[in-house]
Amino acid sequence: MHAPIDKPAVLAITGGVGGAKLALGLAAELDASQLHVLVNTGDDFQHMGLHISPDIDTLLYTLSGRSNQDQGWGLAGESWNTLAALEQLGGETWFQLGDKDIATHLLRTQALASGSDLLQVTHMLAQRMGIGATVHPMSADPVRTIVCTDRGELPFQHYFVRHQCQPSVTGFRFEGVKTARPNAAIMQLLAENCFSAIVICPSNPFVSVDPILQLPGLWQALCTASAPVIAVSPIVAGMALKGPAAKMMAELKLPVSALAVAKYYSEHYPDLVSGFVVDDSDSNLASAIANTGMDVAVTNTVMRSVEDKQALARFVLELAGLPS
Amino acid sequence: MHAPIDKPAVLAITGGVGGAKLALGLAAELDASQLHVLVNTGDDFQHMGLHISPDIDTLLYTLSGRSNQDQGWGLAGESWNTLAALEQLGGETWFQLGDKDIATHLLRTQALASGSDLLQVTHMLAQRMGIGATVHPMSADPVRTIVCTDRGELPFQHYFVRHQCQPSVTGFRFEGVKTARPNAAIMQLLAENCFSAIVICPSNPFVSVDPILQLPGLWQALCTASAPVIAVSPIVAGMALKGPAAKMMAELKLPVSALAVAKYYSEHYPDLVSGFVVDDSDSNLASAIANTGMDVAVTNTVMRSVEDKQALARFVLELAGLPS
Repeated sequence: MHAPIDKPAVLAITGGVGGAKLALGLAAELDASQLHVLVNTGDDFQHMGLHISPDIDTLLYTLSGRSNQDQGWGLAGESWNTLAALEQLGGETWFQLGDKDIATHLLRTQALASGSDLLQVTHMLAQRMGIGATVHPMSADPVRTIVCTDRGELPFQHYFVRHQCQPSVTGFRFEGVKTARPNAAIMQLLAENCFSAIVICPSNPFVSVDPILQLPGLWQALCTASAPVIAVSPIVAGMALKGPAAKMMAELKLPVSALAVAKYYSEHYPDLVSGFVVDDSDSNLASAIANTGMDVAVTNTVMRSVEDKQALARFVLELAGLPS
Repeated sequence: MHAPIDKPAVLAITGGVGGAKLALGLAAELDASQLHVLVNTGDDFQHMGLHISPDIDTLLYTLSGRSNQDQGWGLAGESWNTLAALEQLGGETWFQLGDKDIATHLLRTQALASGSDLLQVTHMLAQRMGIGATVHPMSADPVRTIVCTDRGELPFQHYFVRHQCQPSVTGFRFEGVKTARPNAAIMQLLAENCFSAIVICPSNPFVSVDPILQLPGLWQALCTASAPVIAVSPIVAGMALKGPAAKMMAELKLPVSALAVAKYYSEHYPDLVSGFVVDDSDSNLASAIANTGMDVAVTNTVMRSVEDKQALARFVLELAGLPS
């Protein structure tokens, strides 16, 4: 073990499952205190009086070793007795509330009701789960992702879970994003130039990364920091490994490719991403991506095993110029 | 089965476990639509953002056949996975939140947040649980029982569960009782003289029956109705079968006896109780109780089996002059 003080800090920007895998790899490659994870809260919602933060929970469960690896979300060894009782009583069951998961929601809801903000609540939960890395909600202020579809506007969890991503997407709105204050601790670390690398995880650009990058002043702060910004493509061989990113791109009339993701970032956030990582299977796109002005790096980005996650994390850190 | 229209309506006034047993007996002896149960809500509290109504839940679970008979409270076949996860995360675990039970609390909390009142929510839950009797919360307005003790004032559930009734009781306060409106449906049924019998169940006089009877106008409405009011002693052979009634009486310097309960009711609610039922083991108190002006009736009041519950219900109904 090395003393954290000599080590560079790394910022990972992430949504849920896919990004959490890389965050776990980074946590393993770094000293825990080096890793700061900035997490989307646009998916947060109120459900039956509970404040649920799906992406934060995925990060907390993944980084604490509690996540259900097979399922890709939720907790290992979860049980569903409350949900079964809810079903029996004719309650809402479209959102899969696990019994253990409910404990997290109860603690968060209680702490928020007692006057803590989402940042304090998240730090409390991370500490109680024994997580060494720092998990930062993107904002303590509510931002709510609304998916515009052929069936009307849907709050994200309704689109994602209730309607299982079936409606055709025409666009997105992030309610509250214009007045939400980005996470103050991250803004300060950026202003003090504390990060040696910034990683945009292979998360959904539209509903995981965009809500974060559209917070007032955040993109500018990321650009101003001297750390290289490395983005990992969530699209591999024309498919999303997880979630609706590919389906969304098709419905938005974008080519479903890592190149289109690179172009999306370079057009919407000029001068932000310096290095773009694509999967081996997309090596043929390298020169076209390079034309967007980003450095391109090719490696295996499909994270099935712990080794995959750590290998990709090492690759990204080396690309950012950090010694392994 | 008889058509309900020919049958007399019966009102049972009750707290939790002990009273629920007699209510179950009454439900079995009557057509479901005949039975109206008026339930204490002074024990209601907010816990981790959930609105919990312990006595209402006990009635709902008992009348729907869901209750844990061995334990005396809660649901049969309950599991405790949320509570175990809460404990692991350092959350509050003094109140035993079962996984199935949480479904009830979530439904109630959600419906209250959506603008329903406690009466509507309770009817919805009773309907979904398939309960034929009508379960009436004593009021839709919040009344909160505060137990005054040698360790200071304690909200009821903190006294009852968290401190396991250990503090010595000096008195009680019912916050909000002076402005709470008694259940409107019950007040109307009383005004229309719809009840042929009113039963004060063997519940705790101080923290189950008093909060109900102290609602503005309720005692007067009960007295004005022509139905006989039959009370069943919760004290049997100088002991409470369930809960802290006996301990409270001792701490309040009252004799721990069915006679003291009869005197308590006759002093605090003159002209209310016309018939007082004591257990066989207290037959020696009959003449002293008769001196309070009540008719006294002696039978087995210890309800262990279904047959016990129905036998006591039949006894009470016959005492009220209802044909069996």
